[in-house]
Amino acid sequence: MKVRVLVRLKNGVLDPQGQTVRHALHVLGYHQIKDVRQGKVFEIELEGIDQETALRLIPEIADKVLANPIIETFSWDFLD
Amino acid sequence: MKVRVLVRLKNGVLDPQGQTVRHALHVLGYHQIKDVRQGKVFEIELEGIDQETALRLIPEIADKVLANPIIETFSWDFLD
Repeated sequence: MKVRVLVRLKNGVLDPQGQTVRHALHVLGYHQIKDVRQGKVFEIELEGIDQETALRLIPEIADKVLANPIIETFSWDFLD
Repeated sequence: MKVRVLVRLKNGVLDPQGQTVRHALHVLGYHQIKDVRQGKVFEIELEGIDQETALRLIPEIADKVLANPIIETFSWDFLD
């Protein structure tokens, strides 16, 4: 079983990486880019568990390890 | 217009960040986690362009700035 977890900074939290990318794109002439927010994606392969266990497990590990719940939010999906 | 670009390491490219996360999860007792691959996600807000221009522009900036085409691949989607 494979899942994908997206971790993003909460709205209002400063994103220096995203701002740097936005600046670089403007320097290259891409002025259509209004905003860039950068986050993390985790593709996780699980074995020996059913879908129901995954539904409990993934939010648990996202909250404990993958995201910092003070400044980040996460969302996730099954990939297969 | 908003798009999301996912950047992942190509298969076969070592992923020390993903391996560190996998190790941390095993230490915490999550032995169901077989593999973790970590990548980047960019949420980009564009203005003043139509969908057709975006279809040309996004792969261009992903290839030039967001991803390193030697070791990474990207995929992307419209968010609205």
